[in-house]
Amino acid sequence: MIKPVPLDKFYCLINHGVTALISGKHGDDANVMTASWVCPLDFSPNAKLTVVLDKSTYTRSLIEQSGYFAVQVPVLSQLDWVVKLGSISKKDHPNKLDGLPLFYQDGYDVPLVSGCAGWIVCRLIRNLENQQNHDLFIGEVLSAWADSRIFDNGRWKFDEMGDEWRTLHYIAGGQFYLTGKSVVMDE
Amino acid sequence: MIKPVPLDKFYCLINHGVTALISGKHGDDANVMTASWVCPLDFSPNAKLTVVLDKSTYTRSLIEQSGYFAVQVPVLSQLDWVVKLGSISKKDHPNKLDGLPLFYQDGYDVPLVSGCAGWIVCRLIRNLENQQNHDLFIGEVLSAWADSRIFDNGRWKFDEMGDEWRTLHYIAGGQFYLTGKSVVMDE
Repeated sequence: MIKPVPLDKFYCLINHGVTALISGKHGDDANVMTASWVCPLDFSPNAKLTVVLDKSTYTRSLIEQSGYFAVQVPVLSQLDWVVKLGSISKKDHPNKLDGLPLFYQDGYDVPLVSGCAGWIVCRLIRNLENQQNHDLFIGEVLSAWADSRIFDNGRWKFDEMGDEWRTLHYIAGGQFYLTGKSVVMDE
Repeated sequence: MIKPVPLDKFYCLINHGVTALISGKHGDDANVMTASWVCPLDFSPNAKLTVVLDKSTYTRSLIEQSGYFAVQVPVLSQLDWVVKLGSISKKDHPNKLDGLPLFYQDGYDVPLVSGCAGWIVCRLIRNLENQQNHDLFIGEVLSAWADSRIFDNGRWKFDEMGDEWRTLHYIAGGQFYLTGKSVVMDE
């Protein structure tokens, strides 16, 4: 049920401002962290996004070394993992990922979290000023996929699925909002 | 009902990935545009955010000239304006803002849109490489305010108000999602 998303439509996976999971891997060392500050940056001619990665995070150092990362869109059924991956560090908990189901897509050595609604693999566009001064990382999107049960043909299917499939929007202090009702306007 | 939001809490106004309105003014020339690609960047020691502004937009040129802009959080009752401000340009429609209720806060020469849930005034941190190569603008947050009926003490009050007060999350093709149910987890 994992289907490719065209690069010029990748932004539809994160355009509604979802809380994301960020994966990185360098050599045999992999990690996954939660990040709220993820944003599309472009979709044509190059698909790009930004993510803010604090200097204290283990995942950031993996991404700086390997130059690759994944942005993933978790859903309500994964909330326990979303909170855990965002509140403990692999620096203190080497077994942080134990029990987290991961998979790989052909051609990319970045672990992806099973059960997400969407996955976006990026190559880091290095910019030391942004990274050092602002913790701001720019990624060129190389490939994107979605679980076609919840996102297909550029369209989210929240109203056809249960709440456990809704995406998450973090505020602070452990509080999230689910993606809510759809409103369509003629432009 | 417009109350200041502490700078280190400004991000709670946009952390859930809302569609925003961006205001700019240079001399007597003001404009407001809709933008989906707005993201917090830091809250301490300096509050900062990012916004992506296409080179074709009139508002971008005003911001480049004045060095100041506002990010505002519209709600469902303003949806007609959100769509209009995002679909026509002042270049083609000089009277684009006619009928849009605006106000100013002391000390800032940036027009703010009445009826929003929150307002964030920023000073542009100029970075020509980001602006030219990525259409990416970084702002230092100078002041923030919220309508205390919908956001107070760092907390959104969606469940206490009607749907017309819910914030918006744009996908594409005229489709938005409202901010939905609250979920709270112990961290």
